Formats: sequence, structure tokens, C-alpha cells
Amino acid sequence: MSDSIGISLLGAGNVGSAVLDTLLADVERHNNLIGTKLKLNYVLVQDVDKHKKKSPNIHFTKDFEQIVNDPDTSIVVELIGGESPAKDYLSKLLKSGKHVVTANKDVMAKYGSELNDLAIQNNSSIKYEASVGGGIPIIGPLSRDLLANEISSISAIINGTTNYMLSLMLSEDVSYEDALEQAQKLGYAEPNPVNDVEGIDATYKLAILCGLAFHVDVDPSEIYSKGISNIELQDLKYADELGYSIKLLAKADLIGNRITCLVCPTLIPKSEPLSKVDGVLNAIQLKGNLVGQVVFEGPGAGASATSSAILGDVIDTAKNIHSSWKESSNSILNKIQINDIGDFQSRFYIRVNVIDEPGVLATIAGIMSEHSISIASVIQAASDPEKNTAQIVLITHDASQKNIDLALNTISKEKKVDKIFNLLPIVN
Amino acid sequence: MSDSIGISLLGAGNVGSAVLDTLLADVERHNNLIGTKLKLNYVLVQDVDKHKKKSPNIHFTKDFEQIVNDPDTSIVVELIGGESPAKDYLSKLLKSGKHVVTANKDVMAKYGSELNDLAIQNNSSIKYEASVGGGIPIIGPLSRDLLANEISSISAIINGTTNYMLSLMLSEDVSYEDALEQAQKLGYAEPNPVNDVEGIDATYKLAILCGLAFHVDVDPSEIYSKGISNIELQDLKYADELGYSIKLLAKADLIGNRITCLVCPTLIPKSEPLSKVDGVLNAIQLKGNLVGQVVFEGPGAGASATSSAILGDVIDTAKNIHSSWKESSNSILNKIQINDIGDFQSRFYIRVNVIDEPGVLATIAGIMSEHSISIASVIQAASDPEKNTAQIVLITHDASQKNIDLALNTISKEKKVDKIFNLLPIVN
Repeated sequence: MSDSIGISLLGAGNVGSAVLDTLLADVERHNNLIGTKLKLNYVLVQDVDKHKKKSPNIHFTKDFEQIVNDPDTSIVVELIGGESPAKDYLSKLLKSGKHVVTANKDVMAKYGSELNDLAIQNNSSIKYEASVGGGIPIIGPLSRDLLANEISSISAIINGTTNYMLSLMLSEDVSYEDALEQAQKLGYAEPNPVNDVEGIDATYKLAILCGLAFHVDVDPSEIYSKGISNIELQDLKYADELGYSIKLLAKADLIGNRITCLVCPTLIPKSEPLSKVDGVLNAIQLKGNLVGQVVFEGPGAGASATSSAILGDVIDTAKNIHSSWKESSNSILNKIQINDIGDFQSRFYIRVNVIDEPGVLATIAGIMSEHSISIASVIQAASDPEKNTAQIVLITHDASQKNIDLALNTISKEKKVDKIFNLLPIVN
Repeated sequence: MSDSIGISLLGAGNVGSAVLDTLLADVERHNNLIGTKLKLNYVLVQDVDKHKKKSPNIHFTKDFEQIVNDPDTSIVVELIGGESPAKDYLSKLLKSGKHVVTANKDVMAKYGSELNDLAIQNNSSIKYEASVGGGIPIIGPLSRDLLANEISSISAIINGTTNYMLSLMLSEDVSYEDALEQAQKLGYAEPNPVNDVEGIDATYKLAILCGLAFHVDVDPSEIYSKGISNIELQDLKYADELGYSIKLLAKADLIGNRITCLVCPTLIPKSEPLSKVDGVLNAIQLKGNLVGQVVFEGPGAGASATSSAILGDVIDTAKNIHSSWKESSNSILNKIQINDIGDFQSRFYIRVNVIDEPGVLATIAGIMSEHSISIASVIQAASDPEKNTAQIVLITHDASQKNIDLALNTISKEKKVDKIFNLLPIVN
């Protein structure tokens, strides 16, 4: 038994750097969550000198054997990506009893079962939440929380690059080529974009989701796949006119003991939630026999979001390792105070019934102003000539609940004010 | 070591019956997932005779002691609801080393830490995914997948009753009273609706979410809460006019080491995803420092959806119990064939460039018809007088990919057809 859990990384690119930053910054937090420290051992990179200059305190190495043979490394995070040499590394790590966390969709789509079996045979484990949907929890919910369901359908927008491009084409009235250039400029698309725009990336992710949802091995090369490179601005406009959005949809439906699987630009009615998932966002919609339809939405890519999934898996793995030493407590970590509701800051909606006389609004506005509340807009709504009353709806700028309450208390005592109906906060 | 895991239930109401139905129907499936059988032992009810008549093969009892003292029961599912006697039962079960799964939001909001501590002290466990958001996975993702994040904000629609009522009032132009009556008729609201309409139910759920997100104990009675009983149809209409939806929003924000917590009818701009969550749906939006913003949406109530969360927890608990006996395999359960893409059925969008001559559309429609494809609508779009061409967009009724491909192959050979630009499926 050691007083810490050793962790090593393969790869220190964008995602790797984000993982390293959080690992080094959140030592205390991780210690509290896990019950023991995470200790960074090695980071595998190609150019040790270059990385050493930037981060002299990290032990970089270009020798994979050093990591797989390190008795002090229990968890290895694989962020090399691609099939080779990552698949070989993952096999060797699992065989040597290391616990593995990976973001590698290519490898998990093609060799997921094989690696899962290796993990079980060797008393190790492999987790891959980051392989689909970036930071959106989807592998976890499918493999645990929704496990009682027979999943009958997956509909997913799981490629941020193409979703960004399709959104941009219609919103900015630009061609496919211009959208691709812009995506490349912003780092959303690779210099060679073929994996994203031809739907290959999405087939890998759909194969992983099918494996978990239908408990079956799906070879990604068997999934029919069509990319977005033939989609012209005109298609988006015609679809829009007809009431649809075009999205690169990854779709799988279970009917009897057969599944239909495809990745294809698809028209989605604007009434459907998936039609409104724009830009680099991802969304995964599942139907289960018990739960009905659930949707998971969030940032499907990006170093920080992906590091959320990876570190979630790391902490979970570390907790499992640590809990076989001693039961970890769910102790309260933070000393947090609940703010008095009076300190709550918001814009507010106020509906008031007033005597329909000149100067009423000025009176109300004056009292508001005395309490440092400024009015953003006013609707002078329905009036009731018989009772000589009128209804006013006020929208305030940001104000504290305390000041609003004080102001309304004074306003309610005004003779010209009949009744204050409702005071509601407005989400910013 | 036994060859099955014993399970008993407290309560056999709507949710209890749904859990029982699936437990009894999916024996083989659960066996495959867990690696051993779940064996139903006892079901605690008040009226044993009544239940016995409907389900003579189930062992009903009104004696809680029989369950807590049953050496063959490892997992107990608590579905009595409310604080008493449920809290007392849960404590006794955990003290006796039983693993517990509960949907009880009242008890978890008020005594969650105490029960979690009891579980750790007694080597038992307590899971409560069903206590918030019905079948939507949210407790699991917060306590595992998103654990690396510092969560800064929760915005949630977590009371289906009030969301249904507010949606109905605006869409059907009915009063609060009529909406409540309708909700009661459909079983969405209790005969005494105060817990839902006054926001008490939502404060319990928000307290549970705050505990997990901020690692802190929040007393639900400290959460500022305002219900929807003062919301009139007019407020919904004014808000709509101003570009907002009104939702009963449960909101918590962490600023420094203080949180602002409230449950309150709130105006949400229509551009925000939460503004479109209508009817009995629930949605929970979280912001984390790593992941950014993620949204979980689905049915927040109902016996079947709730049973999804409960059985997910049961299977997870059973896997944990079983894995301490032997390593469970993630073996492929299903023999599933992937359908040939030719069998894929869909409506389709087709964009074609044709020579601008009379009879072209008739020719195309004729070929479609020969392949059993009927056309739902046609847009005769932009024409190019110089080249004497016109663009046509066709929307088909349901057809197979195979028939579409055959038809388009024939159409592409027609002299009057210049080019087929795009063929895209349409989501139903």
C-alpha cells in the first residue's frame, strides 16, 4: 500500500496539456475526492527537450517501456490518438495490469471488445468517456444509469466540425469552401479535414455508442457513411424554407434483432430539439423502453471539455483503486454559505395594476430610482375604463431582491397603485 | 457465496409496480448484465390481501422487520416516499448492512449526508438516481463523470407538474385553475398539489443537486422558494410578448465560497434551450470549469421513467456486490445483424438540375412511381435561362434507400436531367 496513486500520460498535445494543467493545479481537490493523492510520474512525448524547456518539473520521456514497466504507475492516460502505435500501447498497458483512460475513438471503435476483455483478464480497467461527445457524460450514463433499458434508438450530432460548418454556411450565407476555411482557421477542422467532413469520425463514435446501447460489436467500416462535402448552401436554404435544418446525423435503430446504422447529412424538422443544436455543440438523443427519450447536450470537443471527461475517468479509476485499500467517505469538502435571498441579483419582471391617471408611472419610476433600480422597459398593457385602472408591466435592469422588495413595499402603499400582481426574476 | 442476489421492495404503488414488472420480465437480461440472478424476496405493502389477489406469486408482507432481518436480502428498494417511516427504515437497513436504492427526495434532501455516512460505516451503500429528474441520468454524471469539474451553476426545470401547467396555460389559453384541474385529471398533480405548485418538491431536488455539485450540505428549508400559484395567464402572455417563457426554475450559483439558491417562477429568454423545455419534461443545465455548459433533458416523472433510474441503480449495486465475488465480463449479449443500407426506410430530400422543358417533372415522377416512390412535395426553385436549366427539390414519402438509388440511377440517364445534386434522408 502506498500513500498516493501514480499516473502517467501518453501524449502532451492540446488535450494532454489541459489534463496536465488540471492535474497539477487541483492536487488538493483530487486528494479530497479520492482519499489519496494523484502523483504524476511520466509524460510520453516525441520531443523531450522542447517540452522540458516549457515545464522543467515534469518528467518527460520518449520511452514507452519506461512507463509500462514503472511499478509506481497505476493509471495511464492515452492521448496519442489514431490507431498506431496507440492500440499496441493500450494492449501492453492492460496486460501489465495498468488501469487505462483513453480518448481514442478510432481504437475503441475497432478494438473496444478486445481491449475490454484484456482488462478483465488482467484485473485492470479501461475507461473511455472522452471518446464520444467530448465532455458530455454519455459513456457513463449508457453503461450504468440507463443500463436497465433496452435502447431502441440513437440519434446524435457527434461531430463538432461539420456541425459548425453547416451552421456557419446558413447563418453567414457562405459556401462550403468558405466554411471549411473558417473552421480550419479556428482550429475546429484539421488541415486535412477528410475524417470529419466525410463522416468517418462520426462512424467511429456511432460504433462505440452502438456497442454500449445494443451490447453488440459493430465494425465502424460496416456503417454506411456519407459526409457533408456535397452539401451546398442552396440545400441548406431549401431545407430551411421547407422547415428543416440539415445536420450530419449519426443514427442507429434497433428493430427486432437487426440494427440500421448510418451517418449522413439529414433533414431534421425544426420542431425537433436536435435541429437547434448549432455550432460546435454535440447532442445525443436516446430512446429506451423504460426511460423514454433523453437528450445529452454540450461541447463535443475542445481541450478543456475533453479533459473534463478524462479526469472524471481518472478520478473514478483512482477511487476504485483506493476503495480496495479503505472505504472512502463522501465527506463534505467545502465550507459554503448560502446567500441571503436579499442579495440575489437579477433583472426583474413586475406586473402592477394602477389607477389610470397621469403621473402614476412617474411616481413608480421615482420610487424605483430611490432604491437604485432602473427600469429597462415598460408595457402599458390592458386598461379597465370601468374601474379606471390600467395594467403596467415593468422590466428592470439588474437589481438586488432586497432593493426590489423595499421599493415594491413603498409602491404598494401609494394610493394610485391598486395591486402588485407578480414579481419574477429574469434569467440573463 | 450464493448463486443469486436477493432483492426486496418497500412499497408497491405506481413506481413500485413498474419496478416489479421489469424485475420479473427481464430476469435473463439482468442475469446477463450482472453475471448472476436477481431474486425477488419480499415486497412491503399495507394491504397484503389486496396485492396477493393481483399477484399471487409475489411474497407480500406488511412486516418491515421481516425484510431488514432477511439474511437472503442484499438490496432493498425504498419506494414509500415521504419522511416517515421511510427515513427510519432506511437507517435501519443501512445499519444492518443492506444496500439501498431509493427514489425518496424528501429524505435524501434532508438526511442525505447522515445516510451516506451510515452506509460507509456499515459497509453498505445508498443510491438515489431516481430522486431527481425521474429517469434522466443526473446523480450518476454529477457524482462520477463530471467529478473533475468545479461546478459553478445549476439551472434546472425539475418539477414536471408545474412545467406541464405553465405550458398548458399558454398553449391552450387557460387559467391556472383549469390547468391544475387538467393536471390532476391526468395524474400529473396530486389531489393536494401544494408540494408541487408551491415549489417545495423542487427545493428538495435542488438541495440534492447542490450537495453533489458543490460538495456541501444544503438544508432545503434554507432555499428561498416561490411557487407558481400566483402566475396568471396574463403573465405568461406578457412574457411571451417580451420574448420570454416563464418556468419554475431551480437555480444555484456558486460565487466565491457562497451560493445563491432559489426556486422561483422565472422569465427565460426564448433563445435559451431551457425556455423550450415544455410539458412534463425536465431539464438540468450545469456549468463546470472544465466542461463548460452541459444539458440533460428527458421525462422527469412517470412510473416507467422512474423505474429506469431505480433499476439502473439496482443493477449497478448488484454488479458491485457480484464483482467482489468474481470479475464480471462485459460480454457481448446480443446477436444483432446490421441491416444493409438499402433497407433503410425514410422520407428523402432530392435536389436535381433539369433542362427547363415541359414534361420533365412528369418523367421524373413516372420513374419514381415505377420504383414505388411517391412524391410528397416539389419546389420548382431557381432557373437559369442562359443554360435553359431549372432546379427542382423533391420531398418523397417513405421509401427504401434501395428503391431511391435505383430510381435516381434511371433518372440520371434521362437526357432532360442535367445533374442530381443531393439525396438526403429526412428525420420523421
